[in-house]
Amino acid sequence: MKKIINDANLVEEQMIQGLVKANPDKLKKLNCGNVVIRAKKKEGKVALISGGGSGHEPAHGGYVGTGMLDAAVAGPVFTSPTPDQIYEGIKAVDAGMGVLMVVKNYTGDVMNFEMAAEMAQMEGISVESVVTNDDVAVEDSLYTVGQRGVAGTVFVHKIAGAKAETGASLSQVCELARRTAAQVRTMGAAIAPCTVPAAGQPGFSLGSDEMEVGIGIHGEPGTHREGLKPADAIAEELLEKILAGFELEGNDVAVLINGAGGTPLMELYIVNNHVQDVLKEKGISVYRTYVGNYMTSIEMQGFSISILKLDDEMKAMLDAPADTPAWKE
Amino acid sequence: MKKIINDANLVEEQMIQGLVKANPDKLKKLNCGNVVIRAKKKEGKVALISGGGSGHEPAHGGYVGTGMLDAAVAGPVFTSPTPDQIYEGIKAVDAGMGVLMVVKNYTGDVMNFEMAAEMAQMEGISVESVVTNDDVAVEDSLYTVGQRGVAGTVFVHKIAGAKAETGASLSQVCELARRTAAQVRTMGAAIAPCTVPAAGQPGFSLGSDEMEVGIGIHGEPGTHREGLKPADAIAEELLEKILAGFELEGNDVAVLINGAGGTPLMELYIVNNHVQDVLKEKGISVYRTYVGNYMTSIEMQGFSISILKLDDEMKAMLDAPADTPAWKE
Repeated sequence: MKKIINDANLVEEQMIQGLVKANPDKLKKLNCGNVVIRAKKKEGKVALISGGGSGHEPAHGGYVGTGMLDAAVAGPVFTSPTPDQIYEGIKAVDAGMGVLMVVKNYTGDVMNFEMAAEMAQMEGISVESVVTNDDVAVEDSLYTVGQRGVAGTVFVHKIAGAKAETGASLSQVCELARRTAAQVRTMGAAIAPCTVPAAGQPGFSLGSDEMEVGIGIHGEPGTHREGLKPADAIAEELLEKILAGFELEGNDVAVLINGAGGTPLMELYIVNNHVQDVLKEKGISVYRTYVGNYMTSIEMQGFSISILKLDDEMKAMLDAPADTPAWKE
Repeated sequence: MKKIINDANLVEEQMIQGLVKANPDKLKKLNCGNVVIRAKKKEGKVALISGGGSGHEPAHGGYVGTGMLDAAVAGPVFTSPTPDQIYEGIKAVDAGMGVLMVVKNYTGDVMNFEMAAEMAQMEGISVESVVTNDDVAVEDSLYTVGQRGVAGTVFVHKIAGAKAETGASLSQVCELARRTAAQVRTMGAAIAPCTVPAAGQPGFSLGSDEMEVGIGIHGEPGTHREGLKPADAIAEELLEKILAGFELEGNDVAVLINGAGGTPLMELYIVNNHVQDVLKEKGISVYRTYVGNYMTSIEMQGFSISILKLDDEMKAMLDAPADTPAWKE
């Protein structure tokens, strides 16, 4: 394992400290595990909390700030945070208007966030949750019953976070978050694995000319393996599955070409070049496109494509101001 | 070579198209090689142009937009653009107030930008240039006489770009750009090489426990090779050379922890965690910190640290609005 770290057991703590120290005016860290909250508490509005295992940077701590999240809870790499940590996050950000949890669909995350919600509710805090399950590659998977929550989750952060900033009620923010989660579809592929620091070995191996199609953000198996194809052919394969049965007529979409962490921007832009051409050819109108590392898998080499079907409210919230380390509008 | 591309000969063209298609409201591409300009020309103000070989994404096309560059010219990967391309870029963005070229110190870049400037000057366009040479690792190098221009160049884009946006004259913008370039120092290290698509092989090789200290952004040799050390020790080694003789008393600094392209954000934040501690211990006051992939080397694994000594004008320009694909304020 060749990494720029100090100690495999300290990566989460030192990384979160490094994130907070880069943004001392925006972020602070609670003293109860790796919970990042806004430096200035948002008052009188619904609060948003998200999180999950570490290793997906900038998700989720990088999305804490004006117009997006109020708190992000980071577990060990690829491991759910504990209910206690999440509970501390909820308590820290609740301003009396309730808290919305945005949870990626993994069994451990869903369970621990739900337990934390129950603990908070017992103290009189209103908590709702939205579970993202945008990965159309596979139904059920390692770590997950049902479809996995992956990069499309970031759209939920942005849109629901902007809605909360308007002063909307918990039920209104929750409704929009669920509507957004229901309208985003994602699928990815990888050409090289990543290594969890504490494991010291790559999570899987691929032949020198092989790729994993439909891979999860922890390196979980996807639909199949096949020989590496040109970027355009990979993009077409993913788009075909994403767009199958997706009724987009009359709606614009947002596109996210998300890097897995070790893939250079050069390759993501090459993918986007063809994705845009394919969508245009199909008569699908693109409202906004985002290209970069939004929900990574440490240094995995690969990418995912997310397509979000937009309505007018989602568009307005997507374009609303945001000031976080990883997303600014 | 395992890459998500279509054809090694098409990477530059398809990448630039993908960048422009992701930002159709902000960018357009000239039909004379890979020259990216603002979709809406900035009128009545000094224009900024930069560029160089491709492979450093998001530099430089990702910095075209309000508050930063007016044009970016991309040559083949790690190869200077031709004078003709640069000349077309200069002509496209000049609005009668003159053009400032921001050129990283590589012999080919400096020569070709200078030739382009002469061509433009013969047509009556005022052109000035600033050559960045922030890499303190080595004096003279492969491709370069004198110190190399590396990640610190992005600070020059931001600060000079903001100054141009105020309506300042060419000499004023040029003076600030040169002042900024003179006050930024950078040094990097890498633990894994990158592969130029057209070459098909990594540019260098490193042992499984080896790193290159002082590496250039094309993988050029640095000061030496040594065994891989903990992140904190690497950061200290780089900082020691960067800070040697750098008179910072009474000045705040900006810090850039720049990823080489294949290094996960996790590792960059771990580096930042210690960089901030070391600077604090030395009594150096940090005004702003940036962590991410700003000036990459395709998928190289490594990072650089840049320290910019700030004055009040630089601070104001650093914080001025910017709306580009890769830097927003």
